[in-house]
Amino acid sequence: MRFEVACTLTYEVAAANTPFLFNVEAQRTSHQRVLDEALVLSPRTRPETFLMPESGNRYFRITAGPGPLELRYRAVVELAPAIHDPAAVREVDGGRLPLPVLFHLYPSRYIESDLLEQFARKEFGRLPRGYNRVVAVCNWVHDHLDYIAGSSNEQTSARDTLLQRQGVCRDFAHLAIAFCRALGIPARFVSAYAWRLSPPDFHAVMEAWLEGPEGGAWFVFDPTRKAAADGMVRIGIGRDAAEVAFCTPFGAVEYGVPEVSIVAPGQAGDEPLTTGAVTLADV
Amino acid sequence: MRFEVACTLTYEVAAANTPFLFNVEAQRTSHQRVLDEALVLSPRTRPETFLMPESGNRYFRITAGPGPLELRYRAVVELAPAIHDPAAVREVDGGRLPLPVLFHLYPSRYIESDLLEQFARKEFGRLPRGYNRVVAVCNWVHDHLDYIAGSSNEQTSARDTLLQRQGVCRDFAHLAIAFCRALGIPARFVSAYAWRLSPPDFHAVMEAWLEGPEGGAWFVFDPTRKAAADGMVRIGIGRDAAEVAFCTPFGAVEYGVPEVSIVAPGQAGDEPLTTGAVTLADV
Amino acid sequence: MRFEVACTLTYEVAAANTPFLFNVEAQRTSHQRVLDEALVLSPRTRPETFLMPESGNRYFRITAGPGPLELRYRAVVELAPAIHDPAAVREVDGGRLPLPVLFHLYPSRYIESDLLEQFARKEFGRLPRGYNRVVAVCNWVHDHLDYIAGSSNEQTSARDTLLQRQGVCRDFAHLAIAFCRALGIPARFVSAYAWRLSPPDFHAVMEAWLEGPEGGAWFVFDPTRKAAADGMVRIGIGRDAAEVAFCTPFGAVEYGVPEVSIVAPGQAGDEPLTTGAVTLADV
Amino acid sequence: MRFEVACTLTYEVAAANTPFLFNVEAQRTSHQRVLDEALVLSPRTRPETFLMPESGNRYFRITAGPGPLELRYRAVVELAPAIHDPAAVREVDGGRLPLPVLFHLYPSRYIESDLLEQFARKEFGRLPRGYNRVVAVCNWVHDHLDYIAGSSNEQTSARDTLLQRQGVCRDFAHLAIAFCRALGIPARFVSAYAWRLSPPDFHAVMEAWLEGPEGGAWFVFDPTRKAAADGMVRIGIGRDAAEVAFCTPFGAVEYGVPEVSIVAPGQAGDEPLTTGAVTLADV
Repeated sequence: MRFEVACTLTYEVAAANTPFLFNVEAQRTSHQRVLDEALVLSPRTRPETFLMPESGNRYFRITAGPGPLELRYRAVVELAPAIHDPAAVREVDGGRLPLPVLFHLYPSRYIESDLLEQFARKEFGRLPRGYNRVVAVCNWVHDHLDYIAGSSNEQTSARDTLLQRQGVCRDFAHLAIAFCRALGIPARFVSAYAWRLSPPDFHAVMEAWLEGPEGGAWFVFDPTRKAAADGMVRIGIGRDAAEVAFCTPFGAVEYGVPEVSIVAPGQAGDEPLTTGAVTLADV
Repeated sequence: MRFEVACTLTYEVAAANTPFLFNVEAQRTSHQRVLDEALVLSPRTRPETFLMPESGNRYFRITAGPGPLELRYRAVVELAPAIHDPAAVREVDGGRLPLPVLFHLYPSRYIESDLLEQFARKEFGRLPRGYNRVVAVCNWVHDHLDYIAGSSNEQTSARDTLLQRQGVCRDFAHLAIAFCRALGIPARFVSAYAWRLSPPDFHAVMEAWLEGPEGGAWFVFDPTRKAAADGMVRIGIGRDAAEVAFCTPFGAVEYGVPEVSIVAPGQAGDEPLTTGAVTLADV
Repeated sequence: MRFEVACTLTYEVAAANTPFLFNVEAQRTSHQRVLDEALVLSPRTRPETFLMPESGNRYFRITAGPGPLELRYRAVVELAPAIHDPAAVREVDGGRLPLPVLFHLYPSRYIESDLLEQFARKEFGRLPRGYNRVVAVCNWVHDHLDYIAGSSNEQTSARDTLLQRQGVCRDFAHLAIAFCRALGIPARFVSAYAWRLSPPDFHAVMEAWLEGPEGGAWFVFDPTRKAAADGMVRIGIGRDAAEVAFCTPFGAVEYGVPEVSIVAPGQAGDEPLTTGAVTLADV
Repeated sequence: MRFEVACTLTYEVAAANTPFLFNVEAQRTSHQRVLDEALVLSPRTRPETFLMPESGNRYFRITAGPGPLELRYRAVVELAPAIHDPAAVREVDGGRLPLPVLFHLYPSRYIESDLLEQFARKEFGRLPRGYNRVVAVCNWVHDHLDYIAGSSNEQTSARDTLLQRQGVCRDFAHLAIAFCRALGIPARFVSAYAWRLSPPDFHAVMEAWLEGPEGGAWFVFDPTRKAAADGMVRIGIGRDAAEVAFCTPFGAVEYGVPEVSIVAPGQAGDEPLTTGAVTLADV
């Protein structure tokens, strides 16, 4: 399925030569082909690009300022998710996890999975292992949290979210990842353009490492239930939100409101979305 | 009903003239008559006593050391709890709470009720108001926590306990009080000799301010379900455990294992305990 | 010295019969005589008053709404502080503290003194004991924190403030109290009308229990250095800010900006303020 | 300089086929040559090895149990540290940091650098930028913390350590890294065999990315001052302790006391250690 994604980001930069790191470009994977894309920076400046080998994230850095900075990115992306029967997707024991994957069991800044082991075990420890246990984790997060814009901030972690019982997509993802890691299921944070997300914005979801009929893979889950896994154009993956900020400025900056869009040309927009287990990642 | 309570506390005191504050004596209320009691300190020393007016707690202070210190307390106590039909016990609005009671809505060191308002509202906000809502809080605490000796320490607060899903009587009480305060129900911490508690030890439970047929009163609840409200000889009440330590030394001290006992002469020990709403407090 | 204090508080109340608890009236102590005062509530309503015995705080409760509520309070107050030579003011050992005072060693919601014992001991443990050690604590707080309006919120505690290195008067007081309690010096939170405070507002300071030439007493300290101890008309005292909110509504309310004033008729306003040790409290 | 390092780790494993991940082998870098090494596992088992490309860490995984497990590792390692004049080592602006290095500015599980920005700025913000500012950070950590075995646990983070003012090498490293990241200096955690460390044990130190005469590099610092940078055989590097545990078992295990040793044949052991700026890393 084909998607057209775009974002416009605007800044007012205080000092000359302020560095910015951006991560807004669509990943290139065997499941996500970027057919066409364009990046326009005003004032014109030549970005320094970096493809992170272990994640496939595409970063670029510029310097700008003083004055206004505008970034416009648009891309045409073809998604070819691998979709499997959830019943055929299993959890993998620590002894059989690929080692680069195993590190996604570790706690991180916003995901104190080590503090939530007992909590996770009590809530999910007796459920049958497999894809549907991760679904149960996501359902729990969905049912126990209120999605309230502005209810959290950049310092809010999974531990806070569990107490506050509210948050935004970032917080839902952090908490679901925390429970997965605490259960011994590798999980990571994903930023994406998400089809049908309303209102349109950058979205945050999670991936868990499980084993399908074709072997181990990262499967996508959205604990907010606001978007479907097969309508997600992935941007960045990381341990948690600390690693996939779409913009990191190194200096004083005023932010405009980001404009984000994703459309699927020729789609009525109300097609049923998959209920299958979806893979979009190569690494 | 009549109880014989006793405790023996032993210490090895490092320095000369180390002050100790104790709170182990049974309260004297209209529901709890102390028929006979004895306090023996070895070496012999004359305690300075203090009855806290706003709580009825009985404190005494001594100085001891260097060397061993032993405290032996025993008392015969007659309990005459007021017992009401739970269905007739209501919650009281903030506008009608007696002002000294109202202060028990405030958060305290180990009970961050202000941080758990959203949590409490989501779990208990839609339940019918009244005695049984407090029972629901206690049931939730009982069902979601594991009682595990040694799983918490002196710095563990309600917020920690909610994440760790385990604790001892002190932690169960703190969390249940936190939920009550967050719901607008005044609640406080109670230390007691608790009949049938196994193994015998000082116990910690909670009281919530509700309105029964005879007016407002503090009703006792035990979220651990280890003891019955009508078999509890109350020692101290306070905002939380910070205020009702049974021993506060002001210097370096080694502790022996406390010996605590409570028996009910002439009782078989397996009588059914009340399922009514129990009041044991005057203030 | 004579002061005229006043405040005007305005609210927009959502629901009918919303209860409010206020604590804005000047305390009456042997050092602080209220010569004249007036409280006007619009719409007119009859407050229910409560003098808390253990603190001398004057509370009143009303119900209001729906619609606007305005409170105007003004008073003429004569301050007669007891002022002593700091060099003659000593710390008091735990064994000699009056028992009602001793409870102000305990940690409270916003003052986790138990967590800061090691910190306090390392910073202040080797200083000579006495009034000037409390001054050293206040100096440390003053020198290590930035006073920044809006840099903290209602959930900020001493532990947070120590990490964030910024706050408002409430946070300065909490941290200084935390260090005092951790050092074994009883300390408590005080709200006040503070002469020369700029901009005018309710102020928060601290009191520590020390022993002067006339015996044990609560001595006032202002770690923000924004006001002098002998120009402070005390309103409320408590374990921490949780207990001395000037307004506690029990329902949905919109707040206007409080207007607070204090003037000293006939004073030029630039007289030197005392550098002595000041007592303003009876209990 | 040549070192002989060794460790013996023993476990009692509860269940059959319990997986273990180990990270105890010396890294191979242009500054650290492994001349000879041997790994012996009892019972004999074939480890699955993994060299993490972005760190050079050498992991291996085995399964063992039920019953005892013993790991013996020994190696002969030649260290050829690059040593520079501290005065010639500068900090690097965010706009010029290599992108894989830049990610070491992010906060991680045990290093909440985002929460300590204000603290770091107030303590170190006015110091001249460069190698000696990192030395000042390490000095501060050394001077403000007590090194006390057993004073922290696996959940202790930099935020906790700053409040508790005590810890072990892991905690010293976490706090120093936190301050560096908060100041905009990339920093990471290093585990090592450390010559002259007393008592012998695995050691934890930090590396900061700075620019020397030969370009950007990771420079080693030991905030505990227990070992010298040029006497450290590096094992693992990571964001924090979560990523470089020397043993991660996936199941119930009892631990023996690790035996760790490092000797420098032919060295008297009291040679002066370098006061230069030391680099031991390739990536």
